Amino acid sequence: MSNDSASEYTEIIYDVSDQIATITLNRPDKLNAFTSTMARELISAFKAADADDDVRVVILTGAGRGFCAGADLGRGGSTFNATDEKRQAERKDFGTIDGVPRDGGGAVTMTIAACRKPVIVAVNGPAVGIGVTMTLPADVRIAAQSARFGFVFARRGIVPEAGSSWFLPRVVGISQAMEWVATGRVFSADEALAGRLVSRVVPDDELLSTARTLAEEIVQNTSSVSVAVARQMLWSMLGEDSPWDGHRADSRAMYELGQGQDVAEGVQSFLEKRPAKFPAKVSADYPDLRRAAWPPRPDDVDSQL
Amino acid sequence: MSNDSASEYTEIIYDVSDQIATITLNRPDKLNAFTSTMARELISAFKAADADDDVRVVILTGAGRGFCAGADLGRGGSTFNATDEKRQAERKDFGTIDGVPRDGGGAVTMTIAACRKPVIVAVNGPAVGIGVTMTLPADVRIAAQSARFGFVFARRGIVPEAGSSWFLPRVVGISQAMEWVATGRVFSADEALAGRLVSRVVPDDELLSTARTLAEEIVQNTSSVSVAVARQMLWSMLGEDSPWDGHRADSRAMYELGQGQDVAEGVQSFLEKRPAKFPAKVSADYPDLRRAAWPPRPDDVDSQL
Amino acid sequence: MSNDSASEYTEIIYDVSDQIATITLNRPDKLNAFTSTMARELISAFKAADADDDVRVVILTGAGRGFCAGADLGRGGSTFNATDEKRQAERKDFGTIDGVPRDGGGAVTMTIAACRKPVIVAVNGPAVGIGVTMTLPADVRIAAQSARFGFVFARRGIVPEAGSSWFLPRVVGISQAMEWVATGRVFSADEALAGRLVSRVVPDDELLSTARTLAEEIVQNTSSVSVAVARQMLWSMLGEDSPWDGHRADSRAMYELGQGQDVAEGVQSFLEKRPAKFPAKVSADYPDLRRAAWPPRPDDVDSQL
Repeated sequence: MSNDSASEYTEIIYDVSDQIATITLNRPDKLNAFTSTMARELISAFKAADADDDVRVVILTGAGRGFCAGADLGRGGSTFNATDEKRQAERKDFGTIDGVPRDGGGAVTMTIAACRKPVIVAVNGPAVGIGVTMTLPADVRIAAQSARFGFVFARRGIVPEAGSSWFLPRVVGISQAMEWVATGRVFSADEALAGRLVSRVVPDDELLSTARTLAEEIVQNTSSVSVAVARQMLWSMLGEDSPWDGHRADSRAMYELGQGQDVAEGVQSFLEKRPAKFPAKVSADYPDLRRAAWPPRPDDVDSQL
Repeated sequence: MSNDSASEYTEIIYDVSDQIATITLNRPDKLNAFTSTMARELISAFKAADADDDVRVVILTGAGRGFCAGADLGRGGSTFNATDEKRQAERKDFGTIDGVPRDGGGAVTMTIAACRKPVIVAVNGPAVGIGVTMTLPADVRIAAQSARFGFVFARRGIVPEAGSSWFLPRVVGISQAMEWVATGRVFSADEALAGRLVSRVVPDDELLSTARTLAEEIVQNTSSVSVAVARQMLWSMLGEDSPWDGHRADSRAMYELGQGQDVAEGVQSFLEKRPAKFPAKVSADYPDLRRAAWPPRPDDVDSQL
Repeated sequence: MSNDSASEYTEIIYDVSDQIATITLNRPDKLNAFTSTMARELISAFKAADADDDVRVVILTGAGRGFCAGADLGRGGSTFNATDEKRQAERKDFGTIDGVPRDGGGAVTMTIAACRKPVIVAVNGPAVGIGVTMTLPADVRIAAQSARFGFVFARRGIVPEAGSSWFLPRVVGISQAMEWVATGRVFSADEALAGRLVSRVVPDDELLSTARTLAEEIVQNTSSVSVAVARQMLWSMLGEDSPWDGHRADSRAMYELGQGQDVAEGVQSFLEKRPAKFPAKVSADYPDLRRAAWPPRPDDVDSQL
């Protein structure tokens, strides 16, 4: 059975069959690079899946060779600059948080976090930047052997967004999270498995059937309300802080750094396939992002006590 | 040396030797299925172990082929229905939380969490439902090769209880936790090891000696007060939220769902060894369990910001 | 390029080259046992690395056969006794927390936690007590094959310090943390790898080059400000509680237990290479360390609800 709104989507495909909704990122010629339109359609699709009692499980995957190559860098160095007028217009309806433009990736991941149906991601190819952080609020991630992953934000002069500062350490542990984030390296499905980012790596041609078998195991054996309440309970017990706190923090960080010199160089050097030369300095250019609690600046380290 | 109250127990065995208390679930003909009596005896035994300076470590295991097959389903579909009069009478002394009957499994696990002696669980056979959630506040879990595990709650129409929404994501990570909880599948000792639910799998006939060797390593080398304080410090630093918050949340969820249609069908279908047909719908039957913080309903996803 | 203050250090070496600061614990004849002087020099060095824009990454390692054998036990049974006058004089400038002397190891680890440059530890040999807890606020730990680890506190009559009650469960999970802390055992690099305390084990002669290659990957590819902000965001999203709460808790625990009978026996028996006979009892000698929240005493287990 197909959802009525499915026909409106231009950058994703939304399909429901056997009580499983499959959401497919669908810009295959761009390796499904993320746009404001895709964000809006994903939000709509996850809300539809949540509201439809005929949907018991959601599978998220990508069309073609890629899962999602990250933010579409079509505007070059100003891609992440919130003062760019074209960008402002596109993203106006995401609203603001604490006076800064809300991160668009986070608008998607907060919707996934709030969904009352379990979410399985089938990572069929490169999942980079928002392409990987959008998978973190899912419950299960399965990778094809040819999948690749990268928390490449520091290579572009920005920070892990979409609430991933909250999600990633909970999914893979703080040490693995920091190694991937600090290097920004692109890594293999096997490294993702060893680091517990994905629970299984399967041959490419078995990816969707594996995801579907897992979804069917849920559909055929469980109470939908039980699963929905359990999903809420387990995630919400991870701490007083919530993904929404992560979303708030990275919206501000993306806003501040998105106007800086490093992001312009990070995106431009990537597009030009040359090493980046980042000019910003921690001593002078570190933005004022401090949460109430910690960590303090090193020259103020004891103020917490 | 044996504890005086040991003679009073009818569904467990309590034994102390070489400064190690061994608590054995003892309804072997029922695979040690959990009852209100067993709950009361476990609470008594763990308090005795905590108070007795001659006890340095507690080992928890099961008699016969099973560890604990879960809640005794002797009353069929009304097993989890708090409005059942016989159930009310049996569980009256567990009291209430926020006006709902307190979950009995949680009465046990909160006592284990508060114990100042380290707890080692030797899982000798099937550990299902409360049979596995009761092990989560322990410090170490070791499995026999023939052990089986299952967070089967969604297959019965209820939710993970005994504070396990707090414990499980901390023990195995949120992704592994959600996969086991959403499917409700029964899985092997090797899957438990790969998922970090247990730290070791050993041949069946080496299980108790392995647990005992580990207990003796603690007894022979460490300060009892040091271990007690460290146990408190490490667990309590896992976040502002505590297992008691999990216990509060699942007591209410068990109360609400325990009176619903899905649990009656879930238990009945299990007893009749047929597939369940769960009638409840997320759109209509999702109870009002929201914590103050999150997650919000998808139609209210931005109210957190 | 070398830092000017480097020449002042007597128990560490501080060196900067290729934008990587290498801090080397340098009491090789004592297996780099930790002293108040070493603590002060580490604090100074990490603050220097944080402030110097020419430093992009910090590597911490040890000179000679050891990484750090733990606290220097030169004063025998009174090593940890805060009422010891010589100790008081030495540690006066660490100040107090809530009226008790501040734990010196924690003064170091809080500085590492607040550093805005990523920290890689290359564990070249035994890392015991503060020798291992000082590594926990680092982002990556790599071990040489001959490294050894031990959270030996319970064998000395004290508790895991330096904020490790907060760090350790987040780095390795609560179950692994409790097993290592409750036994106090010394374990191999391979056990550290299996338990996720270190991310890699390499041949001894490849340790520093491996750490350096990882550091260079960060230096050459990333924006310093991006990495600094990401480091803050990921660590701070681990919960409302912070390492500073752990530091506060263990400063009090070390103060209380440091004056007790078990620590005197724990240190003395270690120095005399004989089994310890710990006299303290949980029933009588458990200090009043309770945090506001939990866990309660077993006889008060329901007061949380």
